[in-house]
Amino acid sequence: MRISEETRGVYIIAATPFTEDGALDLASTDSLMDFYLAAGVHGMTILGIMGEAPKLTQEESVDFLSRVMARVDGRVPVIVGVSNPGLDNLARLAHTAMDRGAAGVMVAPLPGLNTEAKLLSYYGQVCAALGPDVPLVYQDYPQTTGVPVSVDSLNTLIDRHPQMVMLKHEDSPGLAKITGLRKSATADGRRRISILVGNGGLHYPQELARGVDGAMTGFAYPEMLVRVYDLFTDGKVDAAEDLFDAYLPLVRHELQPGLGLAIRKEVLKRRGAIASSKVRAPGPSLSPEDQAELGRLIDRVEARLSTLGLAA
Amino acid sequence: MRISEETRGVYIIAATPFTEDGALDLASTDSLMDFYLAAGVHGMTILGIMGEAPKLTQEESVDFLSRVMARVDGRVPVIVGVSNPGLDNLARLAHTAMDRGAAGVMVAPLPGLNTEAKLLSYYGQVCAALGPDVPLVYQDYPQTTGVPVSVDSLNTLIDRHPQMVMLKHEDSPGLAKITGLRKSATADGRRRISILVGNGGLHYPQELARGVDGAMTGFAYPEMLVRVYDLFTDGKVDAAEDLFDAYLPLVRHELQPGLGLAIRKEVLKRRGAIASSKVRAPGPSLSPEDQAELGRLIDRVEARLSTLGLAA
Amino acid sequence: MRISEETRGVYIIAATPFTEDGALDLASTDSLMDFYLAAGVHGMTILGIMGEAPKLTQEESVDFLSRVMARVDGRVPVIVGVSNPGLDNLARLAHTAMDRGAAGVMVAPLPGLNTEAKLLSYYGQVCAALGPDVPLVYQDYPQTTGVPVSVDSLNTLIDRHPQMVMLKHEDSPGLAKITGLRKSATADGRRRISILVGNGGLHYPQELARGVDGAMTGFAYPEMLVRVYDLFTDGKVDAAEDLFDAYLPLVRHELQPGLGLAIRKEVLKRRGAIASSKVRAPGPSLSPEDQAELGRLIDRVEARLSTLGLAA
Amino acid sequence: MRISEETRGVYIIAATPFTEDGALDLASTDSLMDFYLAAGVHGMTILGIMGEAPKLTQEESVDFLSRVMARVDGRVPVIVGVSNPGLDNLARLAHTAMDRGAAGVMVAPLPGLNTEAKLLSYYGQVCAALGPDVPLVYQDYPQTTGVPVSVDSLNTLIDRHPQMVMLKHEDSPGLAKITGLRKSATADGRRRISILVGNGGLHYPQELARGVDGAMTGFAYPEMLVRVYDLFTDGKVDAAEDLFDAYLPLVRHELQPGLGLAIRKEVLKRRGAIASSKVRAPGPSLSPEDQAELGRLIDRVEARLSTLGLAA
Repeated sequence: MRISEETRGVYIIAATPFTEDGALDLASTDSLMDFYLAAGVHGMTILGIMGEAPKLTQEESVDFLSRVMARVDGRVPVIVGVSNPGLDNLARLAHTAMDRGAAGVMVAPLPGLNTEAKLLSYYGQVCAALGPDVPLVYQDYPQTTGVPVSVDSLNTLIDRHPQMVMLKHEDSPGLAKITGLRKSATADGRRRISILVGNGGLHYPQELARGVDGAMTGFAYPEMLVRVYDLFTDGKVDAAEDLFDAYLPLVRHELQPGLGLAIRKEVLKRRGAIASSKVRAPGPSLSPEDQAELGRLIDRVEARLSTLGLAA
Repeated sequence: MRISEETRGVYIIAATPFTEDGALDLASTDSLMDFYLAAGVHGMTILGIMGEAPKLTQEESVDFLSRVMARVDGRVPVIVGVSNPGLDNLARLAHTAMDRGAAGVMVAPLPGLNTEAKLLSYYGQVCAALGPDVPLVYQDYPQTTGVPVSVDSLNTLIDRHPQMVMLKHEDSPGLAKITGLRKSATADGRRRISILVGNGGLHYPQELARGVDGAMTGFAYPEMLVRVYDLFTDGKVDAAEDLFDAYLPLVRHELQPGLGLAIRKEVLKRRGAIASSKVRAPGPSLSPEDQAELGRLIDRVEARLSTLGLAA
Repeated sequence: MRISEETRGVYIIAATPFTEDGALDLASTDSLMDFYLAAGVHGMTILGIMGEAPKLTQEESVDFLSRVMARVDGRVPVIVGVSNPGLDNLARLAHTAMDRGAAGVMVAPLPGLNTEAKLLSYYGQVCAALGPDVPLVYQDYPQTTGVPVSVDSLNTLIDRHPQMVMLKHEDSPGLAKITGLRKSATADGRRRISILVGNGGLHYPQELARGVDGAMTGFAYPEMLVRVYDLFTDGKVDAAEDLFDAYLPLVRHELQPGLGLAIRKEVLKRRGAIASSKVRAPGPSLSPEDQAELGRLIDRVEARLSTLGLAA
Repeated sequence: MRISEETRGVYIIAATPFTEDGALDLASTDSLMDFYLAAGVHGMTILGIMGEAPKLTQEESVDFLSRVMARVDGRVPVIVGVSNPGLDNLARLAHTAMDRGAAGVMVAPLPGLNTEAKLLSYYGQVCAALGPDVPLVYQDYPQTTGVPVSVDSLNTLIDRHPQMVMLKHEDSPGLAKITGLRKSATADGRRRISILVGNGGLHYPQELARGVDGAMTGFAYPEMLVRVYDLFTDGKVDAAEDLFDAYLPLVRHELQPGLGLAIRKEVLKRRGAIASSKVRAPGPSLSPEDQAELGRLIDRVEARLSTLGLAA
């Protein structure tokens, strides 16, 4: 089960659960996978930036990966984030992941790739180190990496590297980039790759209308991402957006840079998916004011879903 | 009419209108001011970053300022953005503005003030150059300036400079900063200054609940900002947030970095406030896809307002 | 007298002199021009970043430009820095400069041009606004602009814009870029443009050996830049580097980011070229420790020149 | 053998040697340690940024550390760089290092600590995780971390954390910071910590004159760093600077950001200290032009040393 240019749907960015004292929480790993699968996600992405991957030991990364693979048990594809300052480390984790049944790997550009020539060279090195059989997702998240990429450069990568089958799109603003990529695939006859959107899904309905294939983000209500996708692909565009808009106050609240992961983990905890909302140090935690504010936003969204007859 | 620590309400960030060929559009300046005043704004802020101030000649800045002052004619206070790489230029525009009846000036930190010691020193120089009688707004917008500021440093500035009476708050995430500043004013007995929020109002209801005094942002539906403020200060907190949420799809759409100004000007044009949505070069413009997408979002918001019985 | 691809030699980056109270010092403008001309410079560049251009009023810029042109009086070409956040402002100053006899204009990329597609588009707009008859220098100074550019993108600009006749090269590290550009011009038959190096000349001998055509920097001993150029072009490569190395302690001392301009102006003042070392606010000034340290470094360089029989 | 406020001299930043195929080269680790010890260094710092620490596996880090400790065998103190995105990982390596006989650990601020309040909080967490008995070096290298720190904030850290006994100083410009810290220690009666300078030693004589206690940098001629230190502390200030100036062309050449490590490793290889100049991917390598240029610079320095009667 490998991802390809045809991959569609919602690939949830999985949190990495910790106990209150900061240890990897494998029991919560199971319950979190169950939670995501019950929400109907089409795939998972683990060990990404939101998965606190750089704070794990290499051993913990493999333990977590193994536990996820065992629990998911082939029901949906699992993509593994393998970004690393060293190419050897990157390749090692990638091959371990593929050996354990991963569907592909995701790589963000390293900070400091400050010209597109360097960026293209780096992905050439990455593809060579991975070998041609490992499907690759390009994570385009310049707000964090500091490395923007143009449509032209993405097209060069698409042309050069058949194994690059997917773009995790989270540039901002990013709507024109989607249109640019889709036009390249139709007008220029270029290979059309899968595009899944991140950024918490902040512009998800507009992005679907621009031609993306789904979402790859970690919003703590994955069922919304799935239902919006289903409605949209069924042609019920307004219903899809109505549902999205009902959740939008939470989507935008969870997207706060830096703080968002703590909010997301707290929602996952309140929903019973994980035992603790712990973010490993150094990381944010929620104040009493943050907790009360979040509770109020959740209550309002639930009330609105009821009003719309859309309660879960 | 000067701003002070007691200033409350909605200070709209005014666009600077241009004709299609890029000339300063003084007729649209009048109609835009009329539009804002009809929406009930409590004040205006001109020549800010969103007002394309760095693209004007010094003469154009003064022409625009003069036209605004004449049209507003004392009905609401006008704050003037005077940020400039040179302190002499900053002071000159500030004094010109005050001479023409401005209520205060706004200054963002210069890029490159990379320690808080340098930041404090810079605002010391700014206050000395302005003189003690010019009310000062600190624009805290690190996403653009690259200069973050802590609660502690803001408190130092509040202690040192009585003329610093207002914070334009647009740090992100920024909710904890508001709480921190308000606690300083109650627990520590520190001077409580006015805080108006920017960032398009993306977290406006939460920010009001945290103790801010209103908004200073340029959302193209200023009547929403005003009505939310009125409802909130009347204690109708849920009604305020319901109204806000109805507009939230547009709020988040207009907030796209870089592109947002073109969207905002296009909405202002569609609403009859200005003749052209022209952004001076180098600047963004809207593609046909952008235009259609925007139209759909506007229609959806209007439909929802109708459903809620809230149509303008 | 216009610059072209054939331009060679030392184009000194001219400081802008102020009086102790911060006013533009036109008398020192004259003496500074005399000083540079006496040092044998082949040209001048005014109103660059080191010329504190953003701190001048538009009127002061034109006054300074006019004074320089009058004093230089056609003896050497004068390039004018016209970088500006607004394209209209940029073009206006450029045309004013050309009308007054400038040899060309210099434009650095605007901060925020974060893909090479945007960079190419921007220079397309710049060239259109200038018109094809205005010779253009690309200032490649990513340490300050935050906008790096690859050899490929520079080559694209060279191909598209015949008026782009010169590169002010101050990328760091930058030696491989010079080699890359020169190989493009020989192996690929691409137009060979003039390359003058900045960064205080820190790697000047190596850059000359890599194929640059001279220097465009503001080191306060311009006679060194000129003599090294002359020796090198006479084939006296080691003598050129011996002379350079004698000044290297001062070259590296003057290059300190942020502080360097204050050091440079102080040296110019000590050498009698300007009346005051004033840097306009906000800007650095020298402490007593800085002054003593600088004096010691100057004394050591002079002693070494004497030892080498090279004293001025 | 622990570092303290009294630590003086040259702590060489050790490279991490790899074989041509990228494996950790333990034989070259031995020869490199011998080379450094023969040069007379007073201590070593391993696993820093220049030691390519983020490209090692955790196991390799410990292997390298163990090999270094065995070879050095208590002859000089060894400081271990332990910076890590996760606090648990940081503390684990620190404790492993101390268990194996390290003299202290070095921690740079994490990217993203964008206010000094966050910075102070982070070092509070670091010190708590290390425990009070582990001597700590603050690495102040904002060019790479993006986190500047003021004299005031350093003084706050000095006051709060007695275990912070040393500053690796490589801010730029940084001379005034040294003076500021030394004045704090004399005028304010604050604890005087050890300051060793980095940045390749570019301003080493000036920094010694400002009151630093030596150097912590990786210049490939460590005997120069040692001899300059010895001459300076013997009161032979001019002789120290004469010697330094003879090497300055290489110092400034080796300091090129990004490329410098490849140059440094090549020099170490040419001098017989390591078997290969391999930098792990992604990393720079030297072109034939780079190699020839470097050879010429080395020859010139050696010739000058001969002329001065200073040849090694």
